[in-house]
Amino acid sequence: MSHTIYFNKEHEQVRKSIRDFVNKRLNPFVEEWEEDGIAPLHDLFKEMGALGFLGIRYDPKYGGEGLDYWYDVIMLEECGRIRCGGIPMAIAVQTHMATPAIAEFGSEYLKETYLRAAIKGEMVGAIAVTEPDAGSDVAALRTYAKKDGDDYVLNGSKTYITNGTQADFLTLLARTSEDPGYHSFSLFVVPTDLPGFKVSRKLDKLGMRSSDTAELYFDNLRLPARNLIGQEGEGFIYQMKQFQHERFSTLPLCYACAEELIRETVAYLKKRIVFGEPLIKKQVLRHRLVNWLGEIECLRQLTYHIVRMKSVGLDATREISQGKVIGGELFNKVAYGCLQMYGGMGFMNEMWISRAFRDARLYSIGGGASEVLCDALGKLEGF
Amino acid sequence: MSHTIYFNKEHEQVRKSIRDFVNKRLNPFVEEWEEDGIAPLHDLFKEMGALGFLGIRYDPKYGGEGLDYWYDVIMLEECGRIRCGGIPMAIAVQTHMATPAIAEFGSEYLKETYLRAAIKGEMVGAIAVTEPDAGSDVAALRTYAKKDGDDYVLNGSKTYITNGTQADFLTLLARTSEDPGYHSFSLFVVPTDLPGFKVSRKLDKLGMRSSDTAELYFDNLRLPARNLIGQEGEGFIYQMKQFQHERFSTLPLCYACAEELIRETVAYLKKRIVFGEPLIKKQVLRHRLVNWLGEIECLRQLTYHIVRMKSVGLDATREISQGKVIGGELFNKVAYGCLQMYGGMGFMNEMWISRAFRDARLYSIGGGASEVLCDALGKLEGF
Amino acid sequence: MSHTIYFNKEHEQVRKSIRDFVNKRLNPFVEEWEEDGIAPLHDLFKEMGALGFLGIRYDPKYGGEGLDYWYDVIMLEECGRIRCGGIPMAIAVQTHMATPAIAEFGSEYLKETYLRAAIKGEMVGAIAVTEPDAGSDVAALRTYAKKDGDDYVLNGSKTYITNGTQADFLTLLARTSEDPGYHSFSLFVVPTDLPGFKVSRKLDKLGMRSSDTAELYFDNLRLPARNLIGQEGEGFIYQMKQFQHERFSTLPLCYACAEELIRETVAYLKKRIVFGEPLIKKQVLRHRLVNWLGEIECLRQLTYHIVRMKSVGLDATREISQGKVIGGELFNKVAYGCLQMYGGMGFMNEMWISRAFRDARLYSIGGGASEVLCDALGKLEGF
Amino acid sequence: MSHTIYFNKEHEQVRKSIRDFVNKRLNPFVEEWEEDGIAPLHDLFKEMGALGFLGIRYDPKYGGEGLDYWYDVIMLEECGRIRCGGIPMAIAVQTHMATPAIAEFGSEYLKETYLRAAIKGEMVGAIAVTEPDAGSDVAALRTYAKKDGDDYVLNGSKTYITNGTQADFLTLLARTSEDPGYHSFSLFVVPTDLPGFKVSRKLDKLGMRSSDTAELYFDNLRLPARNLIGQEGEGFIYQMKQFQHERFSTLPLCYACAEELIRETVAYLKKRIVFGEPLIKKQVLRHRLVNWLGEIECLRQLTYHIVRMKSVGLDATREISQGKVIGGELFNKVAYGCLQMYGGMGFMNEMWISRAFRDARLYSIGGGASEVLCDALGKLEGF
Repeated sequence: MSHTIYFNKEHEQVRKSIRDFVNKRLNPFVEEWEEDGIAPLHDLFKEMGALGFLGIRYDPKYGGEGLDYWYDVIMLEECGRIRCGGIPMAIAVQTHMATPAIAEFGSEYLKETYLRAAIKGEMVGAIAVTEPDAGSDVAALRTYAKKDGDDYVLNGSKTYITNGTQADFLTLLARTSEDPGYHSFSLFVVPTDLPGFKVSRKLDKLGMRSSDTAELYFDNLRLPARNLIGQEGEGFIYQMKQFQHERFSTLPLCYACAEELIRETVAYLKKRIVFGEPLIKKQVLRHRLVNWLGEIECLRQLTYHIVRMKSVGLDATREISQGKVIGGELFNKVAYGCLQMYGGMGFMNEMWISRAFRDARLYSIGGGASEVLCDALGKLEGF
Repeated sequence: MSHTIYFNKEHEQVRKSIRDFVNKRLNPFVEEWEEDGIAPLHDLFKEMGALGFLGIRYDPKYGGEGLDYWYDVIMLEECGRIRCGGIPMAIAVQTHMATPAIAEFGSEYLKETYLRAAIKGEMVGAIAVTEPDAGSDVAALRTYAKKDGDDYVLNGSKTYITNGTQADFLTLLARTSEDPGYHSFSLFVVPTDLPGFKVSRKLDKLGMRSSDTAELYFDNLRLPARNLIGQEGEGFIYQMKQFQHERFSTLPLCYACAEELIRETVAYLKKRIVFGEPLIKKQVLRHRLVNWLGEIECLRQLTYHIVRMKSVGLDATREISQGKVIGGELFNKVAYGCLQMYGGMGFMNEMWISRAFRDARLYSIGGGASEVLCDALGKLEGF
Repeated sequence: MSHTIYFNKEHEQVRKSIRDFVNKRLNPFVEEWEEDGIAPLHDLFKEMGALGFLGIRYDPKYGGEGLDYWYDVIMLEECGRIRCGGIPMAIAVQTHMATPAIAEFGSEYLKETYLRAAIKGEMVGAIAVTEPDAGSDVAALRTYAKKDGDDYVLNGSKTYITNGTQADFLTLLARTSEDPGYHSFSLFVVPTDLPGFKVSRKLDKLGMRSSDTAELYFDNLRLPARNLIGQEGEGFIYQMKQFQHERFSTLPLCYACAEELIRETVAYLKKRIVFGEPLIKKQVLRHRLVNWLGEIECLRQLTYHIVRMKSVGLDATREISQGKVIGGELFNKVAYGCLQMYGGMGFMNEMWISRAFRDARLYSIGGGASEVLCDALGKLEGF
Repeated sequence: MSHTIYFNKEHEQVRKSIRDFVNKRLNPFVEEWEEDGIAPLHDLFKEMGALGFLGIRYDPKYGGEGLDYWYDVIMLEECGRIRCGGIPMAIAVQTHMATPAIAEFGSEYLKETYLRAAIKGEMVGAIAVTEPDAGSDVAALRTYAKKDGDDYVLNGSKTYITNGTQADFLTLLARTSEDPGYHSFSLFVVPTDLPGFKVSRKLDKLGMRSSDTAELYFDNLRLPARNLIGQEGEGFIYQMKQFQHERFSTLPLCYACAEELIRETVAYLKKRIVFGEPLIKKQVLRHRLVNWLGEIECLRQLTYHIVRMKSVGLDATREISQGKVIGGELFNKVAYGCLQMYGGMGFMNEMWISRAFRDARLYSIGGGASEVLCDALGKLEGF
C-alpha cells in the first residue's frame, strides 16, 4: 500500500505482532464472545499487556512502551481488522478512554496503582461519564461526589458503560459542586470493589455485542480522596481533553474496518456469478467501491495529519472532530452498501457484514454524536 | 390527514378494524415473537381470516371479500404500523406473494383447496423461488420438477423462505425443462406434508426475527400433477406477475412504518431536554424530519396512483418498481436517521427504532434488490 | 404515459393547443430572448390571452376559462417543456403570482381593470414583495404606503422583480403601519405609469436570462385608495395565500422540465458511442436515469394529489411546501446530472442542458428558499 | 492553519509572492477578462515567468526553479484563490498540461525551444488531445500525423482547447498509425504559426469564461519531425503520464477555491440578519459549512500525501484519480450550497459565488470525467 511510506521496519514489526494476535487470539473467538455478550477481558488484556499493546504511548516508568502516535495508529488500524466492533471498543476504552487522563493529570499514586495495572492488563478499566439523563450534554450530569473528611461520598448512576460489568476501576466524572459552569466537576478513579458500587443491569444492544455495556449505580460509595485525578473542579476540562483521545481512536477503527469490509466484499463479488458474470463486473458496484476507497484514503490521510499535529504538540480538536464525523458516517455507509452487495446472504447473522452493519451504527453516536460535534465545530470555526 | 379524501366510511371502518387487531392482537406480542424467532401464524391467521383480512381482494366465491385495491392498501398501511417487520412480512407472504398466482392462474381445484384455506387462515402459505445459488437471477434456478406419470418428482432446494418452517403449502417455481429461456419453468402448489419435504435449517437473520425463514430441501418429492398452476412452462411468466403483488405490498409497508417511526421519534424529541431545550427544537433535526415526511407523502401518492392504475387494468410494473426502490431506500434512511436522533438509547435492543433499523434493511434487498429493479427499469424505459 | 388516466379528451385538447404554442411560438425564439435578456411579453401574452391560456382557472365573468386545477396543471406541465426557465417564470408571474390575490380578494373595480386585462394579455403583471434587505423574511419589509386623503403615498424599493422592466402593474406588498406583527401590511395593485415609479436597474442573472428581472423604486408615488386589494392590514395574509399559488406552479415546471431534459439526454446517450458502445449502455448512467424518473413520478403524483385537495377545498400548504422543496432539489439534481452525461459538450452554452443547469438553480431559492420552507413545515407539523 | 506544519519560511515566502500577484495583478481584472471571454495571457505569463511561477518544478537548466512538489502545491493553492476558474485553468495548462511531457520526454531542442519559453512566459502553450468525437475515449482519436520525409503532415481537428485562440504552441496527440492498440499515437509540439493551422471557432461556455477555449483545425500542416516528443508510437503512454499532472493540479484548485468560497460566504452570513438574527446562527447552515470544511481538510491531506508519494518516486495514479473525483464533486457541492446560502443575491452575476457555481461544473468533467476515472480506478484496484 502506498501509505507504507510513513512506516519503517520497527513500525511494521509492531504491526505484524498485533496483526498476529488479532488473527490468532481474537478473530477465531469473536463469534463465541458475540454470542456470550461479553469477552474475557482479564485474560485477553493480560496477554496484550505482556505483548506491550496496552501502553504504546505511555511512559516506560509505568510500564508503557514510550512510543509515538504512529505506533498508536498502527495499533488502532490493526484493531480495525478485528471481525467485530465490541473487542476494539473494549481495548480502546482501556487505552484511549479510561487512562489518558490518569497518565496526563494523575498523581504518582494513581499512575503507579491504576495506569501501571491497566498497561500490564492486570486491571480492566472503564470510562464513566454518560448518565441516563445526560448524553452528549455533559454539563447535565447529576452523579455527585461529596467531600467528607478524607473521602468523597459518591451517589448517582452512569449508563452505557463499556466494560462495565468486569471493570476493575472506572475513570468517573462527577459533580463536586452545584455551581453552574464547567468548574463543578471532578474526575476520579473509582475501584469497583468498594462497597456501594453496583451494576444495575447489563444492557442489551443492537451491536457491539461482544462488549459488556452496563448501567452502574453508586450508593454512598466512600472513595479515598487520593483517587481524585488532578485538581478538584477541573474534571470537566480533563475529560474534554480525554475525549480527544477517545474520538481519535475511532478514526483508524472506522477506515481500517471499512477497508477490510470492502476487501472481503470484493472477494465475494468476484466469485458470485449472476446472469453469467461475476457481480464485480457491474459498473454500479465498482463505482461505489472505488468511491468508498477514495473516501477511506482521504480519512486515513487526515488521520496521519493528526498524528503529525499531535507529534509537534498542536491542538487537533478540529481535525479529530472532523474525522470522527466523517469516519462514523463513512463506516456506516460502507457497511450498509457492502451488505447490499451480498444480497439476501448479507441479511444472515452468520455473515460478518451483518454484524458490521450493526456495530458501525454506534460510531456516529458514541463518543460525541455527529450533530454534537458539528455544533462544536461551528463554534471552533468561529461561526 | 389530507389523504383521507380518498377514503370513505367503509374504508375507514375496515382500517379501524385492522388497526384494532394490530394494537390488541399483534403489537403486545411482538417482543415475545421476536425473541422466539417465530410467530404463531396458524393461530393468528385463523383470527385474521375470520375477520376477512386475508382475502381482501379475492373472489367471494373462495371466501374473499371482493374488495378493491384501496382496501388492499389500507390493509398494508395498517400492517406498516405493526412494531416489527417480521409479522407484516409473514402476512404479505400469505396475501401478496404465495396466493396471487393461484387466484389468477390456478385451477378450480387449487383455488378451492389452497386459496380458500389461505383466505380463511387455515393454511399458512409460503413462496419458494430463491435458491442458494440464484438470488435475483431467477433464470439460474436448479430445482427440478420432472414429469413422471400423473406426478411431478421434485428435487432441489430453496432458501430464504419466509414462513418456511410452518408453511402448509409452498407456491414454488421449478424447472420443468433444461431448455434455456423463460419457458422452462413451472409454478406449483407444494403441500409440505408430502414425503420428501424437509426443512434443512431455520435461518438466523439480522432482522425480521419474528419471521421464521428457512432453507428447504426436496428429495424426490412426488407431487400430483393437479398441483401445477396454469400451464407447464409458463411459471416464470406467472411468477413475474406475482412479483408485482409482492413488490407492491412493500410500498405501503415502507411509508406507513417510516411515518410511524417519525411520529414516535418526534414524541421522544419533544420530551428529551438537552442543553436546556427539547431536542425537537434543533433545526437540523427538524429539517430532516420534514424532508422525510415530504418523501413519504410522495411515495404514498405514487402508491395511490398505482392503485388507480391497477383499478383500470393498466400495467403498473414501472411505477411499482420505482416505488419499491424508493420505498426501500427511504425506509432505511428514516430508520437510520431516527435511530441517530435517539442517541445511545437508540442502540438499545429494547427500543423499537433499533429493531426497525435492522428490519428495514431487508426492504432494499428482498423481492428484487434495488439494483436488479433499476436494471429492469432501464429496459422498461427503453434505454 | 400512465398518468393519462387522469385526463380526458378535453384536457388533452387543451394540452395539445398549449404544446403547439410552445413548439411554434416560444421554443424557436428562446435563444434570441435569452440573448436579449428579455422576451416580448406584451406580444406573447396577447396571443396567449386570445388562446385562453392566461385565465384558465379564472371566472369567465372577467374573461377567464373557469376551468379546474387539472387544466391548470396541464398548462404548467406544458410550460415545463419550454426550453428555458425564463419564459415559464414570466407566464407564471402573470397567472400564479400577480393575479390570484386580485381574483380572490380584489374589488370589482380591480378585477374589471387588472384581472381582466391580465387574462386577456393586454397588461403584463409583476409581483413586488421582496426587498433588498428582506428576502424570505417578509416581515422585514420597509416599503411604506402612507394613507393621504384618497390616496396612498408609496415610498421604498423592491428587488428581484420578474417582468419588472415591462410590467404594466405590480401586485405589491407594503407596510401600512409601523406596528409589529402581521397586520401591518397591505396589498396593492400599482400601475407602473404613475409618477414616482422607476426601474432602478435591470438585474444581470446567472440564469432565467430571457426574463427581465429588475430593481424598482417608488418615490412618493401617489396611488388611488381603490387600488388597495381587500382590507388594509390584511395584505400579509393575502400574500401568504397568494404564495401558495406561486409555489404550486413550480411543481409541474420542475418535474416536466426535468423529464424533458432526461428525454433529450437519453436520445443523446443513445447516439454517443464511447469505447465502442452507446453511452446509454453504461449501468451507472442507466441507474441514475431511472432513479430520477422514479422521483419525478413521485413528485407528479404529489402534484395531482394537491390538485385533488384544492378541488375539494382542502388547505394544501403542507403538500405544496413539500413539493416545492423536493421539486427544486430534484430539478437541480437532474440538470447537474444530465449535464455530466453530456461531458464537455454539456459545458457549451449552445446546449439546452447548460441553460437548464443555470435556470434550475433558482427553483430552490425563489418563492421561498428550501430552508425557509423546511422551517415553516416544521411549525406546520407541530414540531 | 494547522497545515502550516508542512511549510517552512521559504515556502511561505513563495506563497506570499504568489498571493500578492493574485491579489494585485489578477483578481482586480477578473471581471473584465470574464466579460471579454479571454485574458491577456502573453502579458500575464511574461510577468509570472519573470517571478518564477511558471517553472516551479522544472530544471533550472531551462529556466525552471528546480523546486519540489510542495512548492507546486503552494502555487496551485494560491491559484485556487483567484476569483474565477478560467485564469487558474489557463495557468495550469501552461504548467501542468502542455509542458510536463516536453520536460520529461522531449529532446534537448524541444526543451530549449518550447519548455524554456513556456517557463519564461514568452510562449503560451495549450494541450490538444480531445476531438469532437472522442472525449474521454482517447483511443478514438482521428487526427493523423503522416510521416513525409523530414516532416509530419497533420490533418484533423481538436476541440475544447483551453488557451486555444492565443496559444503559441500546442502539445498535441495524433495518430501516427492506423493499428489498433495504444502504440499508434504520438505526441508533438505544434507551433501555431505554421501554415495549415486554423482556429475554427472560439467556444461559448457555461463557465470558465475568462479562458479562451477553441476548436482547432489542421489542414495539411507540415510539422518538422524534430517536433515529435520522444519516440513515435509512445504518445499515448506519454499523455497518460502527462494526465497525472493535469489531474493532480485540480486537487488544490478545488479545495483551495472551495475553502475560499466558504470563507466569503461565512462573512456574508455573519452580516446578513434575517428574522432578527445573523444567518450564520442557523444550525442547518453551520452543519453544512463544518461538514464541507471537514471534507476539504481530508482532500488537502490526500493531496499532501500525493506530494510525499511523488517526492519519493511512487506512482500516485490511484490517489490522484481518487482526489480528482472527490475534488470535482466537493467543489460543485460547495459552490451549489454556498450559492443557496446567499439566496436571491447568489443568483446575480455580479456575485463571485454565481461565477464559481458555473466554473466548478467543469471540474467533474474536464481532464477525465468522474465516471471515466471511476472505471479506471476499478481496473487499478483489480476489481
